Amino acid sequence: MISSADIYHIFTAIVPLYVAMILAYMSVKWWKLFTPEQCAGINKFVAKFSVPLLSFQVISDNNLYKMNVKIILADFVQKVLALIVLIAVVKLGSRGGLRSIITGFSLSTLPNTLIVGIPLLKAMYGDEAGGLLAQIVVLQSIVWYNLMLLIFELSAAKRASGITPTVEDLGDEEDPEEAQEKDGEEEAQTKLCKSKTVLIFLTVGKKLLANPNTHAALLGLIWASIRFRLKVKFPAIVEDSITILSNGGLGMSMFSIGLFMATQPSIIACGIRMTIVGIVLKFMAGPALMAASSAALGLRGRLLRMAIMQAALPPGVVPFVFAKEYNVYPDMLSTGVIFGMLIAVPVALIYYLVLAL
Amino acid sequence: MISSADIYHIFTAIVPLYVAMILAYMSVKWWKLFTPEQCAGINKFVAKFSVPLLSFQVISDNNLYKMNVKIILADFVQKVLALIVLIAVVKLGSRGGLRSIITGFSLSTLPNTLIVGIPLLKAMYGDEAGGLLAQIVVLQSIVWYNLMLLIFELSAAKRASGITPTVEDLGDEEDPEEAQEKDGEEEAQTKLCKSKTVLIFLTVGKKLLANPNTHAALLGLIWASIRFRLKVKFPAIVEDSITILSNGGLGMSMFSIGLFMATQPSIIACGIRMTIVGIVLKFMAGPALMAASSAALGLRGRLLRMAIMQAALPPGVVPFVFAKEYNVYPDMLSTGVIFGMLIAVPVALIYYLVLAL
Repeated sequence: MISSADIYHIFTAIVPLYVAMILAYMSVKWWKLFTPEQCAGINKFVAKFSVPLLSFQVISDNNLYKMNVKIILADFVQKVLALIVLIAVVKLGSRGGLRSIITGFSLSTLPNTLIVGIPLLKAMYGDEAGGLLAQIVVLQSIVWYNLMLLIFELSAAKRASGITPTVEDLGDEEDPEEAQEKDGEEEAQTKLCKSKTVLIFLTVGKKLLANPNTHAALLGLIWASIRFRLKVKFPAIVEDSITILSNGGLGMSMFSIGLFMATQPSIIACGIRMTIVGIVLKFMAGPALMAASSAALGLRGRLLRMAIMQAALPPGVVPFVFAKEYNVYPDMLSTGVIFGMLIAVPVALIYYLVLAL
Repeated sequence: MISSADIYHIFTAIVPLYVAMILAYMSVKWWKLFTPEQCAGINKFVAKFSVPLLSFQVISDNNLYKMNVKIILADFVQKVLALIVLIAVVKLGSRGGLRSIITGFSLSTLPNTLIVGIPLLKAMYGDEAGGLLAQIVVLQSIVWYNLMLLIFELSAAKRASGITPTVEDLGDEEDPEEAQEKDGEEEAQTKLCKSKTVLIFLTVGKKLLANPNTHAALLGLIWASIRFRLKVKFPAIVEDSITILSNGGLGMSMFSIGLFMATQPSIIACGIRMTIVGIVLKFMAGPALMAASSAALGLRGRLLRMAIMQAALPPGVVPFVFAKEYNVYPDMLSTGVIFGMLIAVPVALIYYLVLAL
């Protein structure tokens, strides 16, 4: 049974996050404290320093040798299932294309694990949840975000060469050379496309190298593999040099989300119909797929509950940043982030109560 | 005797601060990550949120009923002595005026207690130093900064009415009406000046009301007087709502100082001669006056050492912000802050070693 003390404990974890977010929102909307360019400065600080340092800390604090393989597999299977369902829907409806699939994938399978997830799930399920979510953060930062970057880049390259990507192109994700050959047939230049492929990979490679979050996640992983093997830790002087900026990371990140909300022209930028689609994808399809894949892989009890709960977290901010950069339905992602944050707490509480039955 | 472990302990406290500062400096100078306007956004966040929240936390954590009256008096006497000496020097040299006196006063008596002072002195003299410095932070935030604001405003008003303030005007600080009467004689309008005086006080009042740091200090003082009397504390939900943003305050403040350094045209903006004057004022005259007043008031041993050490901290950032706003030798204060930060650690170590003899 869930007691009122449990609920209070959860509010204690989540309210401060929202205070930071609302403060940012008010400082732009009411007090006109920051210009859009100044907001961009704070957001950049958060993206380049706060979030990577927070990632590093969370990932390097997680004992790599006690990872739960089942939850990693469940996370992987959920995403593959989501892709299959999305492709089927787009094909059957014969509407949308690669761009719709990417957007649906982002919304349904990439929640805000690092900032909202860890404090919330720790309050719900104890410190064990922190370690579990750290594993999902690793996969997000190192695998999924970078894979998405690659797909976005491919999609952009295709559009640049005048072809709107359709569902048929989706097989190309795994094999971009083949995709380029298809382009080649249409342009009657197989060689030009090969150099294009190289160019795409170079661009993606450059972006990966420039992405401090990938670095932070990799470094965190490397350091975790060393420290838990050799049972060493950083000297205090190094530890403190990291925590002096990462300590504020959580508050700064929420502040940044608040600024983001305040600078968007509308809360429901993509219209009511698409907002409902987004809500269904995020808060129903995502958790349902996670429940299916977790149960299939034999996750039970508390682990199963945690797996489903993290899938019901609001959408993460990084997929929006990508969507905006590549102009792939950014209004849909923006609505997902904003509206998702607004309804995240009641949704999480409903899931929490239902899962505890 | 000071051991090498003591020195390492001090470096452990101070290096992280400099890492945050240098990171900010490099992100502007090397990586061109932030535009000046974006830097302004981060600085504004620090001034409006990080520093006030940090002030509140430090002040409200300090037991008001165990304050050390001697150190407060010593701090007060040091500032009065500094004023007397500065007035004498300016009168004897018959150069400069009120503006020189304000600048000298800032440099010699208003150190960076909150950001640099507390971590450094805690490392040197233990947690007791934190409480002692919190008292000086209270006085700075509630008394000295606001008094300076008043003097700057008076000085600006005088300049606006065409009179360059001189040393003779300094008595007016205590009695602005009299000052205005003198103006009145020259302008042959006593009544106009009275309304001007009212205007000045209104302006200062408005600025005080708009200054989140004054609010934070007052609220911190009020809360400290309640919590240590009634032995209560905030519920976790309130406490965490404050700490979520104040936690990062130290790192953000140092980051902001780094941005400030990177956006100034020159490290030694005021020329070598004035830099030397500044160094003498800051690192020799200030601590010497503090030593004299502390010893006169009967401070001995560890307390005396702490009192002198805090006076030898680099100049604070707030006086620079005022100096820039009122255009009263901002280059001198800028040099003080930047150069002061650069030589702060060796200077502090020398003082630490000498005081330990």
